Amino acid sequence: MNTEIKDLIAQADKAIKEERFDDLMEFYTDDAVLVVKPGLEAKGKEAIKKAFIKIAEYFKNSVVPTQGNMLMLEAGDTVLVLSQTLLDAENKDTSDYSMDRRATYVYRNVNGKWLCAIDNSYGTTLLD
Amino acid sequence: MNTEIKDLIAQADKAIKEERFDDLMEFYTDDAVLVVKPGLEAKGKEAIKKAFIKIAEYFKNSVVPTQGNMLMLEAGDTVLVLSQTLLDAENKDTSDYSMDRRATYVYRNVNGKWLCAIDNSYGTTLLD
Repeated sequence: MNTEIKDLIAQADKAIKEERFDDLMEFYTDDAVLVVKPGLEAKGKEAIKKAFIKIAEYFKNSVVPTQGNMLMLEAGDTVLVLSQTLLDAENKDTSDYSMDRRATYVYRNVNGKWLCAIDNSYGTTLLD
Repeated sequence: MNTEIKDLIAQADKAIKEERFDDLMEFYTDDAVLVVKPGLEAKGKEAIKKAFIKIAEYFKNSVVPTQGNMLMLEAGDTVLVLSQTLLDAENKDTSDYSMDRRATYVYRNVNGKWLCAIDNSYGTTLLD
C-alpha cells in the first residue's frame, strides 16, 4: 500500500467535504478524467472543478466521501487504486446513484508528485 | 475507445490461447504487474511469463480468453480499460475462479507504444 497516495485520497475527500474545489484540483493531473456519472466524463481541471460544484449542488452541499477497504496495484510510476468509496449526504435516500461504490482510481507520479489521472468512483459498474 | 489498445488486447488474448508467452511479454511494460489470483501478484516480465505458464497448466492448456463489453477512460498517455473478460477452458466447470470477470487494465503510452502496466482481470472483486 502506497501510504502517500492513501493520504492524498483522504486529503481530497476532506477538500470535497469542505467544498475547497481549487485546492481539490491540486490532486489531479492536467489531463485527468473524472467520471461524473455513468456516460458523462469531465476532462481537464476546469471541467472537473465545474463537475464537482454540480455534484455538491446535487447533494445539497452536504456530501461527505470516505474510503473503506482499499487495495493498490503498483507498477512503477503508475498505481491502480481499488477502493470502497462511501458517500454520505442529507438526501442520500433519494439519490439516483449508489452511495456505496467500488471505485477505480489511477495515480501517476509526475515529477516526483503523485497525482490522480483517472477518477472513476463507479468502477466496473460502468459496464452494466 | 482507443482502437489501437482494443486491438492489442485481442492480440494478447490470441497469444495466450496459442501459448506464445514470449510474444505475450511484448505487450507489457518492464515493471508491469499481473494479478495471478486474489492475493497473488507477479511483477516484471519474467515473473508474469512464469505465471501465465502456470495459469495455462491450471486450465489444462486449453484456456481461451475473449473480451465482451469494453469501455475506456483516457487521460493523455494513461488509459484505464474496463472489460468483461470471458475465459473458456476444458475444465471451466471445476475452476476455483470466475470465468466471467470484469477486468481493469491500465495501459501506458511509452515512447509512442501502448503497453499494459497493470493487468487485473479480477477488477474490484479483489475488495471482497
